[in-house]
Amino acid sequence: MSIIALITDFGTADHFVGSMKGAVLNINPRATLVDITHAIDPGDIRSAAFSLLLSYSDFPRGTIFVVVVDPGVGGERNALAVKAGPYYFVGPDNGVLSLAFKKAGKPIVRSLENVYYFRKPISSTFHGRDIFGPVAAYLGKGIAFEKFGPEKTSFVHFKTPQVIFKNNRVHGEVIYIDRFGNCITTIEAKHLVDFSSGQVNLKNHRPGSVCLSYGNVPKGKALGIIGSAGFLEISINQGNAAKDLKLKIGASVEISG
Amino acid sequence: MSIIALITDFGTADHFVGSMKGAVLNINPRATLVDITHAIDPGDIRSAAFSLLLSYSDFPRGTIFVVVVDPGVGGERNALAVKAGPYYFVGPDNGVLSLAFKKAGKPIVRSLENVYYFRKPISSTFHGRDIFGPVAAYLGKGIAFEKFGPEKTSFVHFKTPQVIFKNNRVHGEVIYIDRFGNCITTIEAKHLVDFSSGQVNLKNHRPGSVCLSYGNVPKGKALGIIGSAGFLEISINQGNAAKDLKLKIGASVEISG
Amino acid sequence: MSIIALITDFGTADHFVGSMKGAVLNINPRATLVDITHAIDPGDIRSAAFSLLLSYSDFPRGTIFVVVVDPGVGGERNALAVKAGPYYFVGPDNGVLSLAFKKAGKPIVRSLENVYYFRKPISSTFHGRDIFGPVAAYLGKGIAFEKFGPEKTSFVHFKTPQVIFKNNRVHGEVIYIDRFGNCITTIEAKHLVDFSSGQVNLKNHRPGSVCLSYGNVPKGKALGIIGSAGFLEISINQGNAAKDLKLKIGASVEISG
Repeated sequence: MSIIALITDFGTADHFVGSMKGAVLNINPRATLVDITHAIDPGDIRSAAFSLLLSYSDFPRGTIFVVVVDPGVGGERNALAVKAGPYYFVGPDNGVLSLAFKKAGKPIVRSLENVYYFRKPISSTFHGRDIFGPVAAYLGKGIAFEKFGPEKTSFVHFKTPQVIFKNNRVHGEVIYIDRFGNCITTIEAKHLVDFSSGQVNLKNHRPGSVCLSYGNVPKGKALGIIGSAGFLEISINQGNAAKDLKLKIGASVEISG
Repeated sequence: MSIIALITDFGTADHFVGSMKGAVLNINPRATLVDITHAIDPGDIRSAAFSLLLSYSDFPRGTIFVVVVDPGVGGERNALAVKAGPYYFVGPDNGVLSLAFKKAGKPIVRSLENVYYFRKPISSTFHGRDIFGPVAAYLGKGIAFEKFGPEKTSFVHFKTPQVIFKNNRVHGEVIYIDRFGNCITTIEAKHLVDFSSGQVNLKNHRPGSVCLSYGNVPKGKALGIIGSAGFLEISINQGNAAKDLKLKIGASVEISG
Repeated sequence: MSIIALITDFGTADHFVGSMKGAVLNINPRATLVDITHAIDPGDIRSAAFSLLLSYSDFPRGTIFVVVVDPGVGGERNALAVKAGPYYFVGPDNGVLSLAFKKAGKPIVRSLENVYYFRKPISSTFHGRDIFGPVAAYLGKGIAFEKFGPEKTSFVHFKTPQVIFKNNRVHGEVIYIDRFGNCITTIEAKHLVDFSSGQVNLKNHRPGSVCLSYGNVPKGKALGIIGSAGFLEISINQGNAAKDLKLKIGASVEISG
């Protein structure tokens, strides 16, 4: 029983996701494959990193995450498998795994150099099928983590998004906007211990037009709420906050008083 | 062996469907998860109710349907599990399950009040992951239906779409339009016993421009046909009826002759 | 353990894919269902045939492919199951399976005439659920291939795309464009044995503006490369070749020197 969860920028119109799953099942026919998303914009490493950060902890212990957003495929970049907390992460060494494995805890990073666990011939354009999928399939079959390659201490990683405390205010920014227009920020519940009755201040909006209200808000009203992944979200009750409040990725969010 | 089939308005670009599946597999790693659709317009309860109505009976006995179109999440609405015919239905008490469970037969409705079967902490925004998914996972593991909460006799339900007989005519309406432009109506095969050689009359179209023909129609010709879910559909052979005949959800359809 | 891989033009917004999977699981609850794509344009048999051609060999031996792009459903067209190489292919007799089963090798074609293996009642509009899915489910359960119907020697098939050698040049055409804008051609690695240092000539482009370079190309540069399915692709490093080079399906591609 092994669960392999996938994030890619392959889309679902071409055969790529199916081909990668075929390659996994070839090695590990009992794997349970779960799609997280394949709708990452082509090459958008940062989005994929956040998608993984927001979802990995909802999966069972032992889940293997394969993330293939890989604009450097066929070039010099390394390929990685990472053990962190109770999870495994497999993908290119371009930062896409890093936000999640740093949060999952105590990452051990290995460079995928043992070609024994790759599909042959190895194409220069589709390492999801030829390297990352097969490695995940073998990990799921119980092959020891050490077998895949040597440990590495240097790898690409994104800075964990910063939250700044200044003048009794918490400053963060929007990192992800979902289909419903909810704007997920860098600010986590733990940052708000002293601000639970506070106001959310957004640039170009009246101060306090959004409240940190945890009760019920009337339909159409904006609120700041700790969302399902533990981050503060700017939302509108039955509305679209991103559209109505004109918020974009990177917009600054300040909590006061 | 348990089959859990999903209808949501989560889309497939965000991680929500993956997270809900992760939560299910955490409890019931052997569940077989099947996507019916995640493309319901945000909050469109009625569309989701029809999507379930048109598909549930294609699934094996014992299938557990989880429908999460839940604009009232975090508010006062109840959460339900329903046993009807050989199926289980899990979702919010907003009518979304009701067309299907009334048709499946003899529904027994329970209010999900036993928090033992929820994921903790329970977020106020993502009950698909925290309540509905986990309850379905436990149902699939064989936990007795009675354990999830008390029986209820009052719950939100949609009126089953009406079909009216008047002056030797059958009157119905369009309830669903599919990707091919087929317009599925409220009229079922059983309503047409006396009309098998009849005409389909549509507003703003020449009477009888569509025939209840069950033979072959030339390419490009409109016809009324009993579709795969047992409802009369207005279709065009290798064409798009909704577009060509300008039909929308709610358009009235009359069978004469 | 049986793997059933799906290509359809059903889209994923309607319930059709779910209903077909429900029908499969009804017969074979242990089947592993894999989506290749459901985004084929309605009725685009040729695209579906190429999608299958580009992906089938990535799947394990014994995989059963079900392809439902079936504009003739309910009419006179036959239904087929085909054994070729280590694979099975199930779908309508309209050519959609033919490119793959001819390449997989030594196809044995049977006409699906044994209604015992169909779902009843058989609708006239949804043979994916009522015929192709159920036949695949029974094949996956080990029912002998001979049981499904008589062998056929005449069936619809597409000509395998031609590659022409003339005046020391290889002539092919674009058969598929993927999400990244890579333009997959009819030309395979084996055709290029004598041209490995050659040039790719495209109509309306400066001769040799694309090189058959297998080394690294700078970002934004076009190249011809043997892609993951073994066909020559016109690509732009981290760019979109279809858009930037204005290439469409059917565009002619010539390799010289």
